[in-house]
Amino acid sequence: MNVLILGGDGYLGWPTAMHFASLGHDVHVVDNYLRRRIAQETGSEPLLPTPNLHDRAEIFKSITGIQIGVTIGDCCDYRTLEKFVRELQPDTIIHYAEQPSAPYSMMGFEQASQTFKNNLTATFNLIWAVLENAPNCHIVKLGTMGEYGTPNIDIEEGWLDIEHKGRKDRVLFPRAAGSLYHTTKVLDTDLLWFYVRTYGLRVTDLMQGPVYGIHTSQSDMDERLFPNFHYDDIFGTVLNRFLTQAVAGVPLTVYGKGGQTRGYLNILDTLQCVELAANNPAKNGELRIFNQLTEVFTVNELAEKVQRVGNAMGLNVQVQNIDNPRKEHEEHYYNVVSTGLKDLGLAPNLLTDNVLSGMLGTVRQYRDRIDSRKILPRVKWKK
Amino acid sequence: MNVLILGGDGYLGWPTAMHFASLGHDVHVVDNYLRRRIAQETGSEPLLPTPNLHDRAEIFKSITGIQIGVTIGDCCDYRTLEKFVRELQPDTIIHYAEQPSAPYSMMGFEQASQTFKNNLTATFNLIWAVLENAPNCHIVKLGTMGEYGTPNIDIEEGWLDIEHKGRKDRVLFPRAAGSLYHTTKVLDTDLLWFYVRTYGLRVTDLMQGPVYGIHTSQSDMDERLFPNFHYDDIFGTVLNRFLTQAVAGVPLTVYGKGGQTRGYLNILDTLQCVELAANNPAKNGELRIFNQLTEVFTVNELAEKVQRVGNAMGLNVQVQNIDNPRKEHEEHYYNVVSTGLKDLGLAPNLLTDNVLSGMLGTVRQYRDRIDSRKILPRVKWKK
Repeated sequence: MNVLILGGDGYLGWPTAMHFASLGHDVHVVDNYLRRRIAQETGSEPLLPTPNLHDRAEIFKSITGIQIGVTIGDCCDYRTLEKFVRELQPDTIIHYAEQPSAPYSMMGFEQASQTFKNNLTATFNLIWAVLENAPNCHIVKLGTMGEYGTPNIDIEEGWLDIEHKGRKDRVLFPRAAGSLYHTTKVLDTDLLWFYVRTYGLRVTDLMQGPVYGIHTSQSDMDERLFPNFHYDDIFGTVLNRFLTQAVAGVPLTVYGKGGQTRGYLNILDTLQCVELAANNPAKNGELRIFNQLTEVFTVNELAEKVQRVGNAMGLNVQVQNIDNPRKEHEEHYYNVVSTGLKDLGLAPNLLTDNVLSGMLGTVRQYRDRIDSRKILPRVKWKK
Repeated sequence: MNVLILGGDGYLGWPTAMHFASLGHDVHVVDNYLRRRIAQETGSEPLLPTPNLHDRAEIFKSITGIQIGVTIGDCCDYRTLEKFVRELQPDTIIHYAEQPSAPYSMMGFEQASQTFKNNLTATFNLIWAVLENAPNCHIVKLGTMGEYGTPNIDIEEGWLDIEHKGRKDRVLFPRAAGSLYHTTKVLDTDLLWFYVRTYGLRVTDLMQGPVYGIHTSQSDMDERLFPNFHYDDIFGTVLNRFLTQAVAGVPLTVYGKGGQTRGYLNILDTLQCVELAANNPAKNGELRIFNQLTEVFTVNELAEKVQRVGNAMGLNVQVQNIDNPRKEHEEHYYNVVSTGLKDLGLAPNLLTDNVLSGMLGTVRQYRDRIDSRKILPRVKWKK
């Protein structure tokens, strides 16, 4: 399979590239290094320095003999993107090319504008590059469970069967996200759905929960191939942040009451899910949506797990509830349907004590590199 | 009231400016002339030449003594828009600054991209200009009934109370628009709703049906003050197009079976509705949505009305069903709730035979200016 990965430098983009290349597919990655620039701008460097994409591809090739194509280019430049799609004629495009930080998107006008323009323009250009140059190409788009927000009803898998005043219809599941970043993904979904039903595009939109983890079969070959593991308040997802706090000897910072409930997954399962989606493409004119998560936890439950496992490893882990910088429900109903990917064969890697102690062990190896000033929330949702 | 009108050169923007100015409000209009440029580019000039905004404001002042402020500037340039909002400190901003042609938005990548960028960037910049400079300003946003599409359930007024598996929630009414232009308005709504609920903006979003008409109290003072009446396939709304075809002696072109059902309103009622919305502002943190229409017709019913009234005036009006250039249901369920504006006092101007013969009479005065080559659809939805 000919696979083009947009946003191939990211926490998930690079592991995905190595995963598909190792499976024998032809892989080409594109990235504009926006995340790297924002990380520098906000002082949010990852735990390990990540070599640039060309270097990582070279390291990967020196170990495996497999070539991953690399281009530093901006999907917001239509001609750049169109050229790739025309020349590579990919069977599958995996679209990660979005500014992924919710706090960054809430910092102020400039950051919001950059997030809005980058994310919407990349998706818009991708749609047209495919329509005009490879209309049968399957787009695998990374959405987020955050698109749905925390409704008071069960979260179905992308679509909702409605009965209203005795009549029925099937509609996109209502969305109400908690940050501008998450809202750009709501808009992506609306836009993709319009072009899918109008021009027959093939799209799988993966509503992914927060991802944790650092280890994949390929990243474990060389630490220079690790995904860019962020533990800061800008790019760090909650569990990665807690693990780093536990190792650094600072309290795990729970935002507000900690009853916020989300669906999580291991980075290994992101790779599985994207592979399953690519191997079982949506039909022409189908927007297929999967809820991509394996387990549901409250923030308090995550903190308790990290504390228990960390203490058993001899760390002295404290938990602290701090003022919630975000605007979100801290106690709410949450019940998610996520059967689609399991039906395709997803075998979840659950958050066992062994997984936690393994990650804590890895983070501990790089303990001297942790800057605990980067962990406390610097961005507040309130104006 | 201090009123800023974005898109003040448009079919509705200019009449709105004169209407609010005549009511004694301080009015300033901004426009980037995008519609004028697209009209030139696509050979879609309006029935009457419309003087530029500075000239129209001068003519209006020479007749009424009332000054309307005019700036030619682009709301997609944040600094331009921000400066206005900061300096004028408007009580109300009426946002018409969007590329309004569905066919134009479906012509190809360049036109789609221009529509997408203009409409989304204008709305995004408006949100931030208000947040940063006049957070209590009331935004009156023109949406479209086209956001909803043609669902198989009753169309409620912006919101839907859902009962699902024994639990309840209230959500934005599901949206599924029929063109990219209409889809940009769906995205606008999503974006406004995010910032309203997060930062407490005050927004009224008017889901307006297709508007017809040429006469308002102010435009009737001087033909150079007429709204830019378009009858072409790019900017002409269906009834204005039919009236012009009837006068030109070419068949009224019904797209497909003609069972497409929509809610319509007279331009006089647009003025009433926008005035009612401005006089009864949304609260902080409220996204108030009204369905703005007064009567529901199928396309066939509109054609029959124009034919009957036109024939009674001595015109020989034919109706022709042509291949539908759009992708839409030609027979469908359609039942809309629209009580909000009536509750505020809207007194509809209905589509009577007198109204139709009045408009036909006006168009007949300019019959020599009609270019009937501009009426047939030049843009197809299918790729």
